[in-house]
Amino acid sequence: MASHQVYPTSTTLADGRELIYFDESPGVDRSAPDSRDLPTVEHHSQVRYDALAGEWVAIAGHRQTRTYLPPANLCPLCPSTPENASEIPASGYDVVVFENRFPSFAGSGPAAGTAGEPADLTATRPGNGRCEVVCFTSDHHATMSQLPASRVRTVLDVWTDRTRALGQHEGVEQVFCFENRGIEIGVTLDHPHGQIYGYPFVTPVTARMLEQVAAHREAHGGNLFAELLAREIDGPRQIAANEHWVAFVPFAARWPIEVHLYPRRRVPDLPALTDGERDAFVPIYREALLRMEGLIPEPLPLITAWHQAPVRTGREDWWMHLRLTSIRRAPGKIKYLAGSESAMGAFINDTTPESVAVSLREVAL
Amino acid sequence: MASHQVYPTSTTLADGRELIYFDESPGVDRSAPDSRDLPTVEHHSQVRYDALAGEWVAIAGHRQTRTYLPPANLCPLCPSTPENASEIPASGYDVVVFENRFPSFAGSGPAAGTAGEPADLTATRPGNGRCEVVCFTSDHHATMSQLPASRVRTVLDVWTDRTRALGQHEGVEQVFCFENRGIEIGVTLDHPHGQIYGYPFVTPVTARMLEQVAAHREAHGGNLFAELLAREIDGPRQIAANEHWVAFVPFAARWPIEVHLYPRRRVPDLPALTDGERDAFVPIYREALLRMEGLIPEPLPLITAWHQAPVRTGREDWWMHLRLTSIRRAPGKIKYLAGSESAMGAFINDTTPESVAVSLREVAL
Repeated sequence: MASHQVYPTSTTLADGRELIYFDESPGVDRSAPDSRDLPTVEHHSQVRYDALAGEWVAIAGHRQTRTYLPPANLCPLCPSTPENASEIPASGYDVVVFENRFPSFAGSGPAAGTAGEPADLTATRPGNGRCEVVCFTSDHHATMSQLPASRVRTVLDVWTDRTRALGQHEGVEQVFCFENRGIEIGVTLDHPHGQIYGYPFVTPVTARMLEQVAAHREAHGGNLFAELLAREIDGPRQIAANEHWVAFVPFAARWPIEVHLYPRRRVPDLPALTDGERDAFVPIYREALLRMEGLIPEPLPLITAWHQAPVRTGREDWWMHLRLTSIRRAPGKIKYLAGSESAMGAFINDTTPESVAVSLREVAL
Repeated sequence: MASHQVYPTSTTLADGRELIYFDESPGVDRSAPDSRDLPTVEHHSQVRYDALAGEWVAIAGHRQTRTYLPPANLCPLCPSTPENASEIPASGYDVVVFENRFPSFAGSGPAAGTAGEPADLTATRPGNGRCEVVCFTSDHHATMSQLPASRVRTVLDVWTDRTRALGQHEGVEQVFCFENRGIEIGVTLDHPHGQIYGYPFVTPVTARMLEQVAAHREAHGGNLFAELLAREIDGPRQIAANEHWVAFVPFAARWPIEVHLYPRRRVPDLPALTDGERDAFVPIYREALLRMEGLIPEPLPLITAWHQAPVRTGREDWWMHLRLTSIRRAPGKIKYLAGSESAMGAFINDTTPESVAVSLREVAL
């Protein structure tokens, strides 16, 4: 697959949003027009500085009216049919990316800030940035782990393309590729899809990790990511590995099911991966998903989160990795974030990482 | 109410856990024995250091088997009857506190640490501490906002007593009094009750806030809490106020419904409140709850969280306050934490704090 190729075609939806087809073969006709009469997308997001937390919070009042659990025959992510003019004008597609109709962030302009307290304690900034939807397949009933390897590779290449593109968008400080799956975490569209956020700030979790990595380097030298990864390789929490990647349940897992996937080589973000690393990602990603999905015979609520370096800061320290987390803690039971987690940030995990790793390794594939 | 009195009686449950009756009148007979044949409470919690986040995470595998949605006629928090030997041996009570049968933290011993990286990057410590359950009333169907003022005052005094007591427990670094309410956040017991956690570490949210307050003092002088509170008093987000307390939707609210309740005078924790401040808390707390509950005619999922100073650090800077937050964002709709919030810590609030404040002020009481 070293010569895996993807063919992008940029188009425009009826309301002016960009839609990009990423085809696996060249020369596909992507001229089908968007026949809908759509109102202009509203986006008047703000970001506000929470001075006590030292974090930016997005205030996006226009999102209250967004689509909520549409019936499957009116899926907005399926290809268009005569009965259903969806978000995708074409009658079929491989992978498609388009601007979210209810964006948390939209518009170009200065970033909110990368770190430190703004001069005004109650600072408000425009919610500039970009929010995209990524459809992984035109098959409404598929899931990522069922897709052919070549399609997973295409999705990886699309994440890479969008990371590069959104990083060049004025005001975007960090690009986050992710998939939310499962009604238990509020996912109102069944169709297999993910999202990409271009944030106008470095996200709180990333900023905190960069602080920790810097403090560790100052105190002890060395890269904190590297030291932690070295402890997991071939250890009791490893669940899968290949030439280029390692998958493990982290030492201090917060979620009932949690798997981290690290490239063996430090890279700041997806565009920095080699072709060999891309090829090797596909089978280990599918294996990690199948092991997690195989633990319990119920659909797995899942968050798939690419932790990438910010666009402009911390790039020489960051070790890009993927985190797969689920709130499913037992058949019919989920882990809720209540007072301890939500108000105090103190996570209580009712599973032990080592026992979860054993269970994941025992799943028959 | 300045002479409000509460009469505690400490007893022991069948498995050795402590149960304390807090009576509103003296001389009540609290000798009813616990007739149950209970297995010994298991607690082999650990706390582990998440070096990349700089936070301790509790690993509590024994909690997987805890009580989940018992039928109402077998409520473990109602007074005992011949048919239902509950956690409370008495046939009635005012307020009662007992040690949790499935504690996240239990046992005495050294704290995990207050701040900074431990010498061992993958440090494990015993999950010492104490977890208590607080029953607000023996009436299974009541809610906090329906209780008589004198009972709310008793609950406040009990929180105060337990803050003092748990602060003296060896290894407890922070005491957190809270109420989780609503099946939407996983509360499996309907009976009106809260919890108190004595953590063996300073919680991540509190530690972060103390860092921010210290950084602000260093850069500008002055107390960050005081400056932020001054901006809210008599401002567009204030929803209630009296001589001693102010309630407002915070400037950078993260949740669809969020109200913070501050005493006008800086105190580190509940024991530092005067009698006058205690009396004045009762009506504004009930008003804040009634306004939040009145927004939508559905039971309100709610987290009530007392943000108190740690036991040993930051006490001269901390401004104790109460945060009331709900994930209810519209009738039948809740705010889920998915990829952006859960993985990146980047909150997207679909309501604006000012419009929520207007709605809260408009609720007819």
